[in-house]
Amino acid sequence: MMAVECEGRIVVVDTGLMFPTTEMLGIDLVLPDFSYLRDRADDIEAIVLTHGHEDHVGALPFVLRELGLPPKVFGGALTVGLVRSKLEEHRIRDAPLEVLPPGRPIDLGPFQVELVHLAHSIPDSRAVALRTELGTVLVTGDYKFDQTPVDGVPADVSRLAELGREGVLCLCGDSTNADRPGIAPSESSVGPALLEIFSRCPGRIIVTSFASNVHRVQQVLDAAAELDRKVALVGRSMRKNFNIAASLGIAHAPDGLLIPAREIESFPDHRVVAISTGSQGEPLSALRRMAHADHPDVELHSGDTVIFSATPIPGNERAVSDTINRIFQIGARVITAADAPIHASGHGWQEELKLMLNLTKPRYVLPVHGDHRRLRLHAELAGAVGTRAECVFAGRNGLALEIDDGGARFGEDVHAGMIFVDGVDIGDPDDVALRDRRALSADGVFIVVATISSDDGSQVAPPEVIFRGVPFIEEADGLVEELRDVVTGSLASAANHDEREVVLIQRDLHDDIAEFVYERLRRRPMVLPVVVEV
Amino acid sequence: MMAVECEGRIVVVDTGLMFPTTEMLGIDLVLPDFSYLRDRADDIEAIVLTHGHEDHVGALPFVLRELGLPPKVFGGALTVGLVRSKLEEHRIRDAPLEVLPPGRPIDLGPFQVELVHLAHSIPDSRAVALRTELGTVLVTGDYKFDQTPVDGVPADVSRLAELGREGVLCLCGDSTNADRPGIAPSESSVGPALLEIFSRCPGRIIVTSFASNVHRVQQVLDAAAELDRKVALVGRSMRKNFNIAASLGIAHAPDGLLIPAREIESFPDHRVVAISTGSQGEPLSALRRMAHADHPDVELHSGDTVIFSATPIPGNERAVSDTINRIFQIGARVITAADAPIHASGHGWQEELKLMLNLTKPRYVLPVHGDHRRLRLHAELAGAVGTRAECVFAGRNGLALEIDDGGARFGEDVHAGMIFVDGVDIGDPDDVALRDRRALSADGVFIVVATISSDDGSQVAPPEVIFRGVPFIEEADGLVEELRDVVTGSLASAANHDEREVVLIQRDLHDDIAEFVYERLRRRPMVLPVVVEV
Repeated sequence: MMAVECEGRIVVVDTGLMFPTTEMLGIDLVLPDFSYLRDRADDIEAIVLTHGHEDHVGALPFVLRELGLPPKVFGGALTVGLVRSKLEEHRIRDAPLEVLPPGRPIDLGPFQVELVHLAHSIPDSRAVALRTELGTVLVTGDYKFDQTPVDGVPADVSRLAELGREGVLCLCGDSTNADRPGIAPSESSVGPALLEIFSRCPGRIIVTSFASNVHRVQQVLDAAAELDRKVALVGRSMRKNFNIAASLGIAHAPDGLLIPAREIESFPDHRVVAISTGSQGEPLSALRRMAHADHPDVELHSGDTVIFSATPIPGNERAVSDTINRIFQIGARVITAADAPIHASGHGWQEELKLMLNLTKPRYVLPVHGDHRRLRLHAELAGAVGTRAECVFAGRNGLALEIDDGGARFGEDVHAGMIFVDGVDIGDPDDVALRDRRALSADGVFIVVATISSDDGSQVAPPEVIFRGVPFIEEADGLVEELRDVVTGSLASAANHDEREVVLIQRDLHDDIAEFVYERLRRRPMVLPVVVEV
Repeated sequence: MMAVECEGRIVVVDTGLMFPTTEMLGIDLVLPDFSYLRDRADDIEAIVLTHGHEDHVGALPFVLRELGLPPKVFGGALTVGLVRSKLEEHRIRDAPLEVLPPGRPIDLGPFQVELVHLAHSIPDSRAVALRTELGTVLVTGDYKFDQTPVDGVPADVSRLAELGREGVLCLCGDSTNADRPGIAPSESSVGPALLEIFSRCPGRIIVTSFASNVHRVQQVLDAAAELDRKVALVGRSMRKNFNIAASLGIAHAPDGLLIPAREIESFPDHRVVAISTGSQGEPLSALRRMAHADHPDVELHSGDTVIFSATPIPGNERAVSDTINRIFQIGARVITAADAPIHASGHGWQEELKLMLNLTKPRYVLPVHGDHRRLRLHAELAGAVGTRAECVFAGRNGLALEIDDGGARFGEDVHAGMIFVDGVDIGDPDDVALRDRRALSADGVFIVVATISSDDGSQVAPPEVIFRGVPFIEEADGLVEELRDVVTGSLASAANHDEREVVLIQRDLHDDIAEFVYERLRRRPMVLPVVVEV
């Protein structure tokens, strides 16, 4: 998510989200912290979306709900189609979504905004050019320079060059593959490789890929049609994305090619292809359920071939490899991108990033969309094509780049970072709840309830001891007895010292119990003492 | 861990462990479930260790403590040295460890046991040949056929061929790289690549690798010495393993080469190399601490080069990439095995597995040491060199392979699998504690304490409500009030129905509270009602 500001007016480019890592216990989604925009909502001219991937549009429902509706939300046709469907799931039906065709600049306050067509792993990917008095800010979004894209419309190199000749003030460029030398393979190189593999598969074929990669799905459809196999789209998002793309004319299945997933079993094995979600080993995805023999429509068996037409996103390696292993256990074959050229990255490699730099000749370069390593490598690429080091700004989230007649510099840090979505709530990742969950998940919890007289602080009922998540307490009964003694001793000591503040009694109880538990179990569960006065 | 049994007597080959995955909340180590051996401890002739890696020897302290000391524990010199040090940490000082040189068979009951020298990423790696009346069982351990190992002693191909000519009954072979075509690069190919990189580093060099890869460490020492740089061993296990290897003559540092880590900062940057633990991004490792600016002796800075002479073990990708990213953030350079040939796997690739099969000509093949996928690929390699399909057994842990004059077949499943080490205790992974921890980590816990009169069940003190790990309760005060009302209502209803069983009152309380919390928060924290009678 990026905010471009000029004369007090703001255009927001993209509103993406992240998926939680395994350390983010119980967290469902990670959003950008957009609190900077909260007091500035009235200054927003528009939100412009580069393309329909979750890491670029996924936070939109939350942003709209929190900031209110902006005057306009622009994007390509598929982007708008996917976003409309997502907003409907969130019951937001009145968002001012509008398709902005590439090459048709519109005026938005001090900005003239134009989309420039680029290639990526989802159709309708666009760079955003924001023309201002000082020059043009170009936000590339995610891109590659694919000379033979599946839809036949390559990145608009000519328009980028024009913008460069007019004068690009600042290039904010995708850094995802800044570490890969050379040029990314074309998306259309995948189709022939799939066809070749399909033609050697004796039984059923299950292809898994990203549901949003409509051109990949199209190539699977084409290969299946050529070999006279029916195709089932398996997984909700696979069907949804295809239907949206088909309704826009971006994808097409010949009549009679598609069959419902529940009919797969009624066709001979060598006459069907399933296209399935789950290429990242996601827990509830169709493929993962097949691998665990838990899918209602598709039961994997020996003779099936599962083709991973995708590579694991960093962090998903284990989930993917577990899924592959399960499929092998069932007896089916697996073919991955390590075995055959059946995947092409949607992000340009080093030579493409350099081409973008050379075409647009920016005065300033702000590498974005990558970890520190890739931002720095992208900065080095800018240096390699002649950008002076003092004009390259490898920053971080929240660090504003300020540009005026006098030059460019990093300004103040604004409050930025991540916020967490947990169920239906949004909150701060430093919330004490998450720390508590980490503690609870490591060693469990001991709860001790002491009931004392409000007259003299003496115990009026035996202590209650409960524990959860504390492992392997074989001698639990004995331990509980001893714990009761600790409680009794602690209370007696408090009474002796005439201690009557419940808070202080609880503190002493906590310390005495924690010490005893550590002595006996060599671990530190959370200890929660409760003192009830009657 | 593998048990080979003949005429009621047992030789155990290896006693390895696994490190926990992120889902194993709070678990420290994962051991093989060796309960099968618990009643058979007296039948164990010996434990034979193939090499000193944790996944082959790490469970030994637990096995010895649980089963008692066997007559002998055999291994190579470095294996025994490393294991002795590990057992001392566990205060086991009387284990009958014995170095068994390769090529010197010894009689152990119905077995004649001989070690055969192989190459791997730790010195003194050995296959175990167990000669029985029926023929020889050959357990390879981890191996590659390195023609130019750093110590100049290649795998004993000639002895393997002899065993093959005599007749190998069953080959239990390492399957780790059954998916990689070709031959693994030689360990000694790493040294020149390191030297070449070193010679282009202007500042300090930090090399991270596995502490047990003594030959790798030796190559770093040699390269540093050649360029007149001092070397510091950073990280406890790095120093320990080197010292053990040096005392056995397996590693050697020229006088004056080594310096203590705390003296690194007193040498010019271009005159030092640090060899550090942490190649897997392990939380408390030296390199991870450097990357987080938290190491007492080494402070990374711009101009430093960090060389990852290792690849991430599956599952560690994110930890490694986070570490690399941190190092980039500090401004140091990072070189990984993706950038230069500075790592060589210790496990043979497909052509080496085929060579092993062709040399030993086993009647039966039992692929081991790999996931289902790799076991099956190894089985296919056996088929490719002519082993009949009915003689290849791709099994699973606990499934015994039975061989007699009549042939070979899988026998019964014995109880096997994993057990978990949590702190100092050992237990079952299905332990309810781990399930509880998962629940606690997902949604936290609500504790409600109700104090009732033992006379009539009426409340004698206001309910106490405590929660931990329940996120983002902004209206927490109001909620707690309402919860108190729920408790009061639930108790009143119980009193009305003359319900006096505390267990039943607690059950009703639980259900009422859980329903209310779900209604209000749309999540399901663990709910623990405590009823105190006074």
